[in-house]
Formats: sequence, structure tokens, C-alpha cells
Amino acid sequence: MSIRIGIFGYGNLGRGVESAIRQNPDMELAAVFTRRDPAAMKIRTEGVPVYHADKAPELADKIDVMILCGGSATDLPVQTPALAKYFNVVDSFDTHAKIPEHFAAVDAVAQESGKVGIISVGWDPGMFSLNRLFGNVILPDGKDYTFWGKGVSQGHSDAIRRVEGVADAKQYTIPVESALEAVRSGANPELATREKHTRECFVVAKDGADKAKIEETIKTMPNYFADYDTTVNFISQEELNEKHGGIPHGGFVIRSGKTGFEGENTHIIEYSLKLDSNPEFTSSVIVAYARAAYRMNKEGMCGCKTVFDVAPAYLSPKTGAELRKELL
Amino acid sequence: MSIRIGIFGYGNLGRGVESAIRQNPDMELAAVFTRRDPAAMKIRTEGVPVYHADKAPELADKIDVMILCGGSATDLPVQTPALAKYFNVVDSFDTHAKIPEHFAAVDAVAQESGKVGIISVGWDPGMFSLNRLFGNVILPDGKDYTFWGKGVSQGHSDAIRRVEGVADAKQYTIPVESALEAVRSGANPELATREKHTRECFVVAKDGADKAKIEETIKTMPNYFADYDTTVNFISQEELNEKHGGIPHGGFVIRSGKTGFEGENTHIIEYSLKLDSNPEFTSSVIVAYARAAYRMNKEGMCGCKTVFDVAPAYLSPKTGAELRKELL
Repeated sequence: MSIRIGIFGYGNLGRGVESAIRQNPDMELAAVFTRRDPAAMKIRTEGVPVYHADKAPELADKIDVMILCGGSATDLPVQTPALAKYFNVVDSFDTHAKIPEHFAAVDAVAQESGKVGIISVGWDPGMFSLNRLFGNVILPDGKDYTFWGKGVSQGHSDAIRRVEGVADAKQYTIPVESALEAVRSGANPELATREKHTRECFVVAKDGADKAKIEETIKTMPNYFADYDTTVNFISQEELNEKHGGIPHGGFVIRSGKTGFEGENTHIIEYSLKLDSNPEFTSSVIVAYARAAYRMNKEGMCGCKTVFDVAPAYLSPKTGAELRKELL
Repeated sequence: MSIRIGIFGYGNLGRGVESAIRQNPDMELAAVFTRRDPAAMKIRTEGVPVYHADKAPELADKIDVMILCGGSATDLPVQTPALAKYFNVVDSFDTHAKIPEHFAAVDAVAQESGKVGIISVGWDPGMFSLNRLFGNVILPDGKDYTFWGKGVSQGHSDAIRRVEGVADAKQYTIPVESALEAVRSGANPELATREKHTRECFVVAKDGADKAKIEETIKTMPNYFADYDTTVNFISQEELNEKHGGIPHGGFVIRSGKTGFEGENTHIIEYSLKLDSNPEFTSSVIVAYARAAYRMNKEGMCGCKTVFDVAPAYLSPKTGAELRKELL
């Protein structure tokens, strides 16, 4: 029998989950939930019902794992605990500073309901976190580096769009190649914010807007751009749509450390991602962890988990014997 | 209280474990076991006893985890099951084809004794296996590539040393850069053995040996060299000692796959290692898994495990809350 997945929230991430489920024959999409009008919503998978979000509790026996596809700012802090009462849940909560309280909220409900909730799944937090953990435990005498990009930062693009005179914008975060090389050399450099990443902005100005002022406003924007070397390129809406329509992303987690009685040997562990579609890759990670949530719950586990708590074998539809034979 | 580690076999790997334990304050070296004369053995850590291998069962209550540092050909198939009767054990068994039977042998004993045995720990099998698994589950519509090197292959170096007229030798396995680039492009190329790696040999010939014949013998050696582009360099013993005394290694696991309703987006996941010392890095991985074996056993688990069965949090001395706060 397939693992029956519910999608809660049908934006970029929800659509990514929908397409990822198709690549996993042991799973099926059981239902999509939305806060909009379900009758007006068209999804890609034929024959799958769309319900209003409020109906979710009534579907408790029709769905094995509910995947939450809302935002970390206001949706997930409320929705993940609420739905963990009825379902095994997986979310991609990514507000790093608030993970401890989100974990506690989901854990309290899931311990009570006997369900498994896996939070903060994706690539960062998620696969990058795992690689930071593995790097730390293998090379305790070492240093971590995380670089992001080249990729689109939604938050920075939004910040530019709020600048007066801006019609549309896209911002790329770009790791500095010389910083990457310094880290890969094993030199364990101390790198300032400005030395790790640059920011490249493609901006569509409104007719008659003061471009010099827009550029100045962007480059000096605190938190978002002031600490970086930022370039601003003004282009037409057509060019923005044509050349910058995708949502690529990626990055690098590098652990550099020493071993030996005198610390005489240096080792570099590098994990990198090059992603055409940030939401589709995130969704693909989430779907694998949905399988784990289902299987761990079947074995009697409950409560809140993160990627740190999931034995990798649970992610695969293959048996332990198959995994040992084929992948070990 | 520290986790008390025993080292069973004191070669390169055993010394690597000894130095790795020093980097982990929650662990201590309790004893070293050898099949040689313990009285003649000098180890680096002061005050730690060296026992004959036969004495191990008598130390069952003095050691929390026994780390087996012997070879996969004849040592580990016998020793790991034998010691799992008395101890939690970790080994680096790396004969891929025989993993299923080794697993079964260790599992039978460990289920009975109530101990945890983690086999095939290191980087391949080990960290590379984990990355193959993660790649497969995240991008099911994709392809795996594993490249090794640049690094010293002990087996190939030994094979050269057995050639008539050879006094000493060192062999490097080198990934072909253009093959790596083709994989990173997302093209999912089919690569023949010869296209993935080259082999570079540094050979010290005995006085008066026929160098042309040695070179011919190496290059046409079945299994080891015949399927590769191999270069043979004759050098002096002094140069070999001076320039090729290390045991570096490393490699790459790359997963390239597609997502989207039409498979329109390509993603590349790359994990790479650049290691100054193959045995010290392997040891460092093993020591982290020794911590996991101890903690899993404390929680009541038993039986044979691999890296696939170990939730990453068990590898770290930090609490779940610390890990979520600092690394997630």
C-alpha cells in the first residue's frame, strides 16, 4: 500500500511536493489543502481532491503524512503544531533562531497524539545541517564554512521591490570564489561577511524613477546589503522575465580540520549543491523525510524530530539488505 | 564518565584511532590489544595497558566499545563476530561484495549478546555510502557517480611490489578531470572504467632489473591496471621515501538528477574528500561511530548496524537541544 501524502498549502513548495511524489512509486498524493477557495484551485494531479484547510482534521484517517508548505514567518509556527494533533507532519521551518521554540511546540503536541513531526527539512536547514554535523564529529579540531549561491534570495528580492521607484527585481547571492579557494586550501581563514558573498541585483525601474537614488538606497540598506559588495543592474521587465525567471540556488558546506598526534594532517570535506529549482529540490528532500516520518511512526516512535534524529535508512523505500548490497 | 575505547590491532588504523580519541574529550583509550608480544609494543598514550589479543574477553567490563583495526581479508570476518560476544564493536570492513554475509555473522552474535556492532565504517564504505543513499532518495530520477583519488591505493601498490624486479612502489589513483566536469554538467554520461580514473605508478627497480619488462607487466596486469591508462615512473628509493611517503586519498560522490513535472530542472549534489591521511580520516569517522554504538546500546539497542542505521545525532557528544541550536 502506498504512503498517502497530504499537501497543506499549494504555492511553489506545494507544487514541488506534488511533482516529487510522482517520482516515488511507494507514495501517492491523497489530497491538497488550501486557505483559498478549493473550487477555484486547479492542481496538476488528476483525480485528487482539494479541500479547504479547515477540513484537514476530518481527513485524519485518509492521510499518512501531511506536508506543510507554508511560510516560516506566520504559517508554520501555528500550522505544524495544530496538524501534528492529527497527522504525521513534515515542514521546512527555516527561521534558524526560532527552531528551539518551534521544536518544543511540535513536540508537545506530537508526544500527546502519538505522531511523528519532522521539522526544518530541506537543504538549509536540512542537508547542509547534516553536513555541518558530520563535519564536526569527524573532524572535531576544525572549522565550518557555509557559503550560499549562486542563487536567488527571495527575501532580498522582496526588499528591493519595496524600494521607491522599483517595479520588479531579482537578487542573486554569489559566493566569492577566492574565499572558497582559501577555505579549500585548509588555511582556515577568518572571513568577514563581505569577503564570503557578493550580491548582484537586477532591477526594473518604474518610468521616470531616479535610478541613482534607487541604487544608493539598495546598496546602503542595513542588514540586507550594507555589509556586502553589491552591484545593481537596471534592465527591462522583458529581460528580467526572460533571463531571470528561474529560482536557482545552491551552496557549499566545507569542513576543514586536522588529525594526527601533532595535528600534522589536514582534511577537507566539501558538500555542494547546484540547483536549478530551489523549491523543487527542497520538496524532494521533504518527500524523502515524509517516508521516514511514516516508517518511524509505524515502528512506534512519536514526537518532534529533525534531520539529526532520522537514521538514513528510513529515507529509502529499499530494505536494509538491499541498501547494504547496493549502496554501502 | 568517559566512553572507554579498546583498540584491537595496532597498525596505521589503530594508531589513527589512538590519535583521534585525543580529540574527543568524552572518550578515553582503555587498552590496546595485539597478536604480537604486548611487552615489545610501544604505544603513544602513556599509562594505557597493552594486552595480548587473547585476553580481550577478560576485559569485557573495562571497555565500552572495541574498535577493530585489522584487515578485511582475513581478520575482521573472524574477529568482529567473535568480539561482539563481549563488546560493542565498530569495524571498517570494506570488501563490498561480502558485506551481506559479514553483517549476518555480526548480527547473529550481537543480537544474542545484546551488544551493538557497527560494520563498514569509514569513508568508502561509510561517508560515501551515506552520500549515495541521500542522493538516491532525494533525486530518484538520477544517476550516481563515485570517483576515487587523488590517492594512494595500498592494494595496487602491493600488486606492483610483487612484480619481478621491483624493490618498492607506490600507486596513485587519479580521477579524470574531464569526466568529473561532464558529470557536474548534469549530462549524466555513461563512463567506461578507463574514462573515470587513471593510474600513476612510482616504481623503484632492483639493480639490473629489466625496466621495460616491469612497465609492460604492470600495464597489462589484469583487474589492477589493464583496464586503465597507466603511467609508470621509475625513481630512486630515496625519492620514493621523500616524495611519496604519505597516504593521501579522497574522492567524489556526485548525484545528478532531474525534478519537475517534465523533468525540466537539473540538480547536482557533490560530496568530496581531500585527505592528507587516509587511515587517520577513516579512524576519525570510526571514533564518531564508536560514540554512537555506545549511546545506542545504552538506549537498549542491539544487533548489527551500518552507517545507514545510525541517526546522526548519536555521533555527537552534544545534546539534541545543542545540536538544533548550533548546527541545524
